[in-house]
Amino acid sequence: MDDINFAVLGTGGIGRRTLEYATEKTALTPVAACDRHGVAIDHDGLDVDELLAATEGNIASDGGAVAVKQSGEMRGVAASTQAEPTETPIDDIIAESDAIDAVLIALPNLEHDFIPRVADRFADADYEGVLVDVLKRSRVIGMLDDRVDSFEDAGITFVCGAGATPGFLTGAAALAAQSFVEVESVDIWWGVGLKSGYEDNRGTVREDIAHLDGYDIETARELSDEEIEAIVDEHDGRIEFNDMEHADDVLLERAGICDAEDVTVGGILDVRSDEKPTTTTVEVTGRTFDGERATNTFQLDDDTSMEANVNGPALGYLKAGVRRNRAGEYGVFGPTDLMPGF
Amino acid sequence: MDDINFAVLGTGGIGRRTLEYATEKTALTPVAACDRHGVAIDHDGLDVDELLAATEGNIASDGGAVAVKQSGEMRGVAASTQAEPTETPIDDIIAESDAIDAVLIALPNLEHDFIPRVADRFADADYEGVLVDVLKRSRVIGMLDDRVDSFEDAGITFVCGAGATPGFLTGAAALAAQSFVEVESVDIWWGVGLKSGYEDNRGTVREDIAHLDGYDIETARELSDEEIEAIVDEHDGRIEFNDMEHADDVLLERAGICDAEDVTVGGILDVRSDEKPTTTTVEVTGRTFDGERATNTFQLDDDTSMEANVNGPALGYLKAGVRRNRAGEYGVFGPTDLMPGF
Repeated sequence: MDDINFAVLGTGGIGRRTLEYATEKTALTPVAACDRHGVAIDHDGLDVDELLAATEGNIASDGGAVAVKQSGEMRGVAASTQAEPTETPIDDIIAESDAIDAVLIALPNLEHDFIPRVADRFADADYEGVLVDVLKRSRVIGMLDDRVDSFEDAGITFVCGAGATPGFLTGAAALAAQSFVEVESVDIWWGVGLKSGYEDNRGTVREDIAHLDGYDIETARELSDEEIEAIVDEHDGRIEFNDMEHADDVLLERAGICDAEDVTVGGILDVRSDEKPTTTTVEVTGRTFDGERATNTFQLDDDTSMEANVNGPALGYLKAGVRRNRAGEYGVFGPTDLMPGF
Repeated sequence: MDDINFAVLGTGGIGRRTLEYATEKTALTPVAACDRHGVAIDHDGLDVDELLAATEGNIASDGGAVAVKQSGEMRGVAASTQAEPTETPIDDIIAESDAIDAVLIALPNLEHDFIPRVADRFADADYEGVLVDVLKRSRVIGMLDDRVDSFEDAGITFVCGAGATPGFLTGAAALAAQSFVEVESVDIWWGVGLKSGYEDNRGTVREDIAHLDGYDIETARELSDEEIEAIVDEHDGRIEFNDMEHADDVLLERAGICDAEDVTVGGILDVRSDEKPTTTTVEVTGRTFDGERATNTFQLDDDTSMEANVNGPALGYLKAGVRRNRAGEYGVFGPTDLMPGF
């Protein structure tokens, strides 16, 4: 009864890694995956190796901003022998969702309300199960909270912000706060090195660029691949971000840990090196009940990749979400409400 | 509906600090407290300041091994204007437990099965609510697991090992493990400095001494205060412990994170200095899904006292336990099953 059948929406970097990651976890069986033009469903479990091999460097999209190098006759998931081409991939998965315990939404959220609208479709279909996303933007959380009633009516446990930051590091901040009766500040600082440049992590780099001075989510969406390349070049492949709009802030406020304004998120992305340019660290400063001021620290080893720190927690939070869902707890849960299972 | 009424069994160091701590937390109302000879119950909320003032340095016990300096006419809780003397303090609290959401068991566990037997009394009375303990010994967890059926029948959510270690640091280890698909080792190393000597933390020091070479739980129990003092003197007040039997090991194994034998707990206690003799650190070493070996680290600031790091998490886990209990989840939960609320 602890077994979990799950689906992945989207087979970009995060979706593919989640499938791969799941093969290393007990009791987690991927039974469905889709991209824009293909869907693969096997309730006995997908052959992940075949699916990943068939879609390697071959991600279906509508071209332009999210296009990735393509090869083969069929694009993306449809190239797998387990898949069918489709123009309604999400509906196809919803049609089979009675047998799916959890759905990881690994779609780029370039429009703020895109993931909330995907969730609406599951709620409209009375899906009873878990939805997990790895969104970053603070403003999306409120849109999800607005949907609590429809999630509760359907029986959906929506786990939001379940990647690295927000997600892993938000959970670490919540735990580190346990020494304190009052939290003054939470500082999240990340380092990401990508040996592969950003070919496999295009959506992530684009979202990050939207945080740079002079850019926002709309202008970043309009950038061509060449323009992104030029921005990366300008920074010699190493881009520093400060005061990012990451949902750690609203998620920590929502859990009563501190005010959103006391949370800062920043970091350095190096798209040309495997080595992390800086150590990912969470520092939580607060006041203890016995009157001391102190800072607790959580650090990720430089040898843990961004992928390991996104996909492990995403599946950990997914497992924790399924446990809550099976106990009949529905609505919207942040990482701090739902520390992950291993 | 988020308000929590709770009771504390025992008003030694941990019990007293929990009451004090709760005054700084929202939505947590202490409504009952007892020691061996007195019980105070007020469903509108105890006057914690009065209770602590009345029992300061004045803890009721049966003398001998757990005796603490006593003063005043009445000993312990009974000295409070809110309290009644009683010879059946736990039964008195059980009699009122319909209106009590959670009970923190802050009793010394010198007999291994003492806390399990206290839990039995609540289960026999069909208590529906949360029991929390801050026990340390690995072997007690199995005794609690043996009682799952009776806890489920009654409606008890038993949260075990919810102090610092096990508890806070076990949770940190579980979270730090999220980068990995396989955990090789968990090393927990703590530093505790006690400005007050061990007067207020006698039970803790005695339990710790049982971990020293040449001692076990039985011989430690038989030590007189003078003998403990002599042991402390021999070590110039600074005692190092290695390979302690702390339940972090079985709790992490139980959660599927690693084998119990891969967990080590040790630390240094300085009963003569306020300063911590070493920094409390959790190191989790594992293998990532992409084949790296790495170590994630969680560190508590030296300025966070043992008390802050026991009582904050104990109440955090208590809150998380109440949430599970209200959702109808009963049985035995370790820290990793139930990361704390703030």
